Amino acid sequence: MRMVDIITKKRDGGILTREEISFFVNGYVENKIPDYQISALMMAILFKGMNKEEIVNLTDIMEHSGDTMDLSKIKGIKVDKHSTGGVGDKTSIALGPMVAACGAKLAKMSGRGLGHTGGTLDKLESIPGMKVFIDEEQFFKQVNDIGIAIVGQTSKLVPADKKMYALRDVTGTVESLPLIASSIMSKKLASGSDCILLDVKFGNGAFMKTFEDAKKLALTMCEIGNALNRDTRAVLTDMSQPLGLAIGNALEVKEAIDTLNGHGPKDFEELCLQSGAIMLEQAKIVKNEEEGRQKLIEVIHNGKALEKLCEMVKYQGGDESYILHPEKFELAKHIIPIISNKDGYIKQIVALKIGESSMKLGGGRETFEDVIDMAAGIVLNKKVGDKVNVGDILCYAHTNKENIDDILNEIHEAFEIVDEVVSKPNSIHLYVK
Amino acid sequence: MRMVDIITKKRDGGILTREEISFFVNGYVENKIPDYQISALMMAILFKGMNKEEIVNLTDIMEHSGDTMDLSKIKGIKVDKHSTGGVGDKTSIALGPMVAACGAKLAKMSGRGLGHTGGTLDKLESIPGMKVFIDEEQFFKQVNDIGIAIVGQTSKLVPADKKMYALRDVTGTVESLPLIASSIMSKKLASGSDCILLDVKFGNGAFMKTFEDAKKLALTMCEIGNALNRDTRAVLTDMSQPLGLAIGNALEVKEAIDTLNGHGPKDFEELCLQSGAIMLEQAKIVKNEEEGRQKLIEVIHNGKALEKLCEMVKYQGGDESYILHPEKFELAKHIIPIISNKDGYIKQIVALKIGESSMKLGGGRETFEDVIDMAAGIVLNKKVGDKVNVGDILCYAHTNKENIDDILNEIHEAFEIVDEVVSKPNSIHLYVK
Repeated sequence: MRMVDIITKKRDGGILTREEISFFVNGYVENKIPDYQISALMMAILFKGMNKEEIVNLTDIMEHSGDTMDLSKIKGIKVDKHSTGGVGDKTSIALGPMVAACGAKLAKMSGRGLGHTGGTLDKLESIPGMKVFIDEEQFFKQVNDIGIAIVGQTSKLVPADKKMYALRDVTGTVESLPLIASSIMSKKLASGSDCILLDVKFGNGAFMKTFEDAKKLALTMCEIGNALNRDTRAVLTDMSQPLGLAIGNALEVKEAIDTLNGHGPKDFEELCLQSGAIMLEQAKIVKNEEEGRQKLIEVIHNGKALEKLCEMVKYQGGDESYILHPEKFELAKHIIPIISNKDGYIKQIVALKIGESSMKLGGGRETFEDVIDMAAGIVLNKKVGDKVNVGDILCYAHTNKENIDDILNEIHEAFEIVDEVVSKPNSIHLYVK
Repeated sequence: MRMVDIITKKRDGGILTREEISFFVNGYVENKIPDYQISALMMAILFKGMNKEEIVNLTDIMEHSGDTMDLSKIKGIKVDKHSTGGVGDKTSIALGPMVAACGAKLAKMSGRGLGHTGGTLDKLESIPGMKVFIDEEQFFKQVNDIGIAIVGQTSKLVPADKKMYALRDVTGTVESLPLIASSIMSKKLASGSDCILLDVKFGNGAFMKTFEDAKKLALTMCEIGNALNRDTRAVLTDMSQPLGLAIGNALEVKEAIDTLNGHGPKDFEELCLQSGAIMLEQAKIVKNEEEGRQKLIEVIHNGKALEKLCEMVKYQGGDESYILHPEKFELAKHIIPIISNKDGYIKQIVALKIGESSMKLGGGRETFEDVIDMAAGIVLNKKVGDKVNVGDILCYAHTNKENIDDILNEIHEAFEIVDEVVSKPNSIHLYVK
């Protein structure tokens, strides 16, 4: 088999066999096939696509390109969730304890963040003492004991994706549906859970800019997961404005705690309830989503969900007093209100601009070497559809930096205020089964 | 400027600026841009194409990526010809002396061959003593003195094409019109002649399989050349059967000599007359092609064309007695007739198969390390349209190899014989100005 023939076949619209896909994926991981042939193939795939069978084979072969997690030592049905990433997305930190408090097993591996805000691991590390890298036996024991662990991914999972993603990033071949879907799903499948709930974001703050593209991605990923024997479902959620009110690491943890205390922002609470209800159904803990939703509301009201977060934090070495007394999180030196200079209704809060501004305030990384300021970020005071008057506070910038007028202006510009009444958007749009 | 942005722009159908093209061509030559980004860009160009301005800029920038020949030390208008390559293509060896005998200046740089038969340089080297690598001053002096030199290209011309072509060859990105056209034309332009006649082959023995593709390539290359101030014209010639009768190095030189003696195969003689007439017009030696054709016929009849080949061979250290007495060329040990087992008319002589068989007989290289057997090759006894009977000789295989039954069978299979009368094809199809 010659790599150039595989490239030419795909270039001319051919369907790659499992053997051909295995040849290039494993050959690349083993350094037998050079970068320049893989990048040409990725570009050909970007133009010519892949059919369902090719995408499933690609994902399966990528999944098995390195170690895979064997979660059989954890009793019960293991559920996992994955978000394609957005601004202010602290879902795992609230949703995880909620479903675990209802009896689901969540053995979750998360990542760090680049851009916008930190990833889930970064956010958890804003809790003093919290450890996110623990060994496998300890990880299994924790999930068996308390039903939940959120930890960093070991570096041995899916080496094919690490190499291919790094290459795609510099060769203009990121934006290919089969390649995006196989990249995400190979990692999720290698993580070993029985059920997967995908939260596919759309809008300017998300990777997929349009609802239609997000829907295609969600459907493709569900097809892959179900073809490879995992119960895979998806919600599509709006990321044209930030999720909830808080953007920034400690700020988002506090919002997750608020939500577990029953007074989180409505859109964020709803996403947790909708997602959690599906996950409980997937875990066969409830018969249907309605029953799941009731159970989740119950564990918020009776405090069991918050208790579960405390348990997890304690188990992973963190100081759970911060969960019970979130006022202990150190605030940034400067908390600067951004004031409306206009009367009207908020039509848009450009999530991408808010995310970038939060990063510039110190809340995210531009390169992997950057150190995150856990206290930095933005807290919204208004959301899309709200009425505002001149002088009203739109949001607060939290930062330890000085001379940030440019950033404050950018934040202000993210708010579009119009004269006409704007209705509140429905943030959760579809449920793909 | 970032390479990934250039790739993405082309991928999305954008038009690259001269600055962007210069960035990637020169960056690649200077090893500042890695192979994997260039191969991704080449694939994007293959899918999205380039407009005329992009192709002209690409060619111009490639041409100037290394040294260019300054032929100003040669007096008069310098004409050059280029064939896209075919089976049995010995045109330069006959055509060069013909136009030089009429007063044109031909300062030609040729290549070696891979596959089929050797290149023009290999063919010339079948003449004992013939040197094809001579220094620049000597090259200029030779063309000034006798009007013609055919030599090897120095390695410093168009380094961009050397790197890009090697990469395209292993990444499925050879078959792109803008890339083929710029590759050929950058080398021709760097060679420095004032006028260029392109011989674009089509058919199974040529790089372009269809007449339509060859026509597009010819038009594109003429556009490039004329945009960059060289009088560039093209003929399109049929390569669905071999050109002339001889395939193989010394065999082809002998056929070129036959042609200069006035008894070459009709199709080959006609190609030389048609091409030469255009070149003489380009060189402003004649007013029109008809006058050119008469002049060329004259230099064949009065022996000046053959004399010119002798002069060139002698000037380059070769033994001109081989030109005057071609029977001196050593024959292969075995000359095996291939016999027809069918009555009928020859519909096809698959040029690609004849070329490959000639290579296997010893006449070409599979890798650059292979040594060519100058005496090996095939001499056709019949051409398309000829009537044959059972027992007639279709062609002769010349070889020094033993146990070649498989090759002889392949040669036989290249001939398609049908019951219906087949008309003689017109081998020269179009003249692009």
